[in-house]
Amino acid sequence: MLQLFIANKNYSSWSMRPWVLMRQAGIPFEERFVRFDEYSGGGDFSARVAGVTPVGKVPVLVDQGFAVWDSLAIAEYLDERFPERGLWPRDARGRARARSVCAEMHSGFTAVRTHCPMNIEARLPEAGRIIWRDQPGVRADMARIVAMWSGLLAEHGGPMLFGEFSIADAYYAPVCTRIRTYALPVPPEVAAYIDRVCALPGVAAWIADALAEQDFIPQDEPWRAQR
Amino acid sequence: MLQLFIANKNYSSWSMRPWVLMRQAGIPFEERFVRFDEYSGGGDFSARVAGVTPVGKVPVLVDQGFAVWDSLAIAEYLDERFPERGLWPRDARGRARARSVCAEMHSGFTAVRTHCPMNIEARLPEAGRIIWRDQPGVRADMARIVAMWSGLLAEHGGPMLFGEFSIADAYYAPVCTRIRTYALPVPPEVAAYIDRVCALPGVAAWIADALAEQDFIPQDEPWRAQR
Ligand SMILES: N[C@@H](CCC(=O)N[C@@H](CS)C(=O)NCC(=O)O)C(=O)O
Ligand SMILES: N[C@@H](CCC(=O)N[C@@H](CS)C(=O)NCC(=O)O)C(=O)O
Repeated sequence: MLQLFIANKNYSSWSMRPWVLMRQAGIPFEERFVRFDEYSGGGDFSARVAGVTPVGKVPVLVDQGFAVWDSLAIAEYLDERFPERGLWPRDARGRARARSVCAEMHSGFTAVRTHCPMNIEARLPEAGRIIWRDQPGVRADMARIVAMWSGLLAEHGGPMLFGEFSIADAYYAPVCTRIRTYALPVPPEVAAYIDRVCALPGVAAWIADALAEQDFIPQDEPWRAQR
Repeated sequence: MLQLFIANKNYSSWSMRPWVLMRQAGIPFEERFVRFDEYSGGGDFSARVAGVTPVGKVPVLVDQGFAVWDSLAIAEYLDERFPERGLWPRDARGRARARSVCAEMHSGFTAVRTHCPMNIEARLPEAGRIIWRDQPGVRADMARIVAMWSGLLAEHGGPMLFGEFSIADAYYAPVCTRIRTYALPVPPEVAAYIDRVCALPGVAAWIADALAEQDFIPQDEPWRAQR
C-alpha cells in the first residue's frame, strides 16, 4: 500500500496536491499525518520526517520503502505507475502545457504564497482587502493566474483546466482555497471554476478534514493573530 | 527545428539547463538569444519574450510554433519527444529519484540562488568566503547539495549523478559553476564531480560561450560592482 506523508490539512498546501490527486483519481493510499510544530528545524516535525526524506518536508510518497519527495516528482511517479488514470492530459501538447503551468506554481507565485498562506478554515476578507491594496506582487500573481485559468477553460471548454480533471487542477486547488479565504477578486468564469474544484469529491474530502482539524498554529496564522 | 530561447550565458542559470541538456544529448536546436536588460518588467527583455511566452521568462522551447516554458517542463517534453536518448535514468526508481532532486533545485536552494548568483566569468573567492561566513542558509543549502551528490555518486558509482549523464546533471550544472565562482568548500569526491561536469562537451561549450560573451550587466554583478 502506498503511504503519503502529509502535514496539517488546514495549512499544508503542498501536502494537499498529491492527496487530492490520489483521492480524486481513486488511487488507494494510507495517510501518514505529521503535525506541524515549529519551523526552527530542531522540532519534532523535522525529526519525524527525517527517517523518511532527506529534505525535511512533506509531502513524501513511500512505495514499499522507496521514498519520493516533492509534490511534482510524486505526481510524475503516480502518472508512471498508474498510466491508465490519465493524470496528465492524454495528448502530448496538453501534457506539455499542463507541465508548464504546474512548473509555474512549483517555482513561482511567491507573493501569493507569502502574503496569502493557505488557511482553509479562515475567512479573512478584510485581510484580503489590505493585501490586495498594498501588495502589487499579489495583484500581478493573480493577474497571471486569472489569465491562465480563463485561457485554459476557454480553450478546453472546461469543466477543469484541461477538460477532464488532471494534475493541473490538483496543483491549483490550494490556490482556489486561498482565493476563498482572502476573498480575492476574480471574474465570474474563474469563480465558477473555483466552485467546481472545491466540489470535486477529492477536494471536498480534504476541505472537510481541514475544517474538522481545529488545530490552530500561531506561526501559520499571521492574520488571525492580529484580530 | 526546435528553437530554444535563452538569455545571457554568463548569468542565466535557468537557460543553461535545457541548453546543456540538448547539446549534451545531441538534440539539434536553434538558439534564440534574448539579452537581459532590466528586471523592471517594462524593459526590452519582457517585450521580446512576450510574444513567445505568457510568463516573461526564459528558457522557452518552441516546437513548430508550440511553446513550452519552464526548464523542468522543457526537460519532460524533450524526454517524451526523444525517448531513445535516455534523458531521465532508465529505471523507474532512478527516474523518481532524479525527479525528486531536480524538483528540489527547481523550488529550493534559495539561499545559494540569492547570495551566489551565477557568474561564470567571475572568480570571487573573497566574496565566497564572506558569504560562507555570514549566510547560514548558504551553508545549509550546500550541506544538502554535498550530501545529495556524494550519496548519488556512491550509489551509482559515477561518473554522473545517476551513472550516465541525465537531466539531473544538467539541472545541477549551474550549481557547479557557482561553486567554482565563489570557491565554496566541498569534499574531494564532489570537487571531482564538478570537474567532470564542467568537462562534458555540452557544459564546456556553454562555458566557452559565456566567457566569450563579455557583456557585463550591473544588476547581475552584486559582488563585482563593489570592487
Ligand atoms: N517543493 C516542495 C515543497 C514542500 C514544502 O515546502 N512543504 C512544507 C509543507 S506545505 C513543509 O514541509 N515545510 C516544513 C519545513 O520547511 O520545515 C513540494 O512541492 O513538495
Ligand atoms: N522556473 C523557471 C525559472 C525561469 C527564470 O527565472 N528565468 C530567468 C532567467 S535565468 C528570467 O527569465 N528572468 C527574467 C525575469 O524574471 O524578468 C524555469 O525553471 O525555467
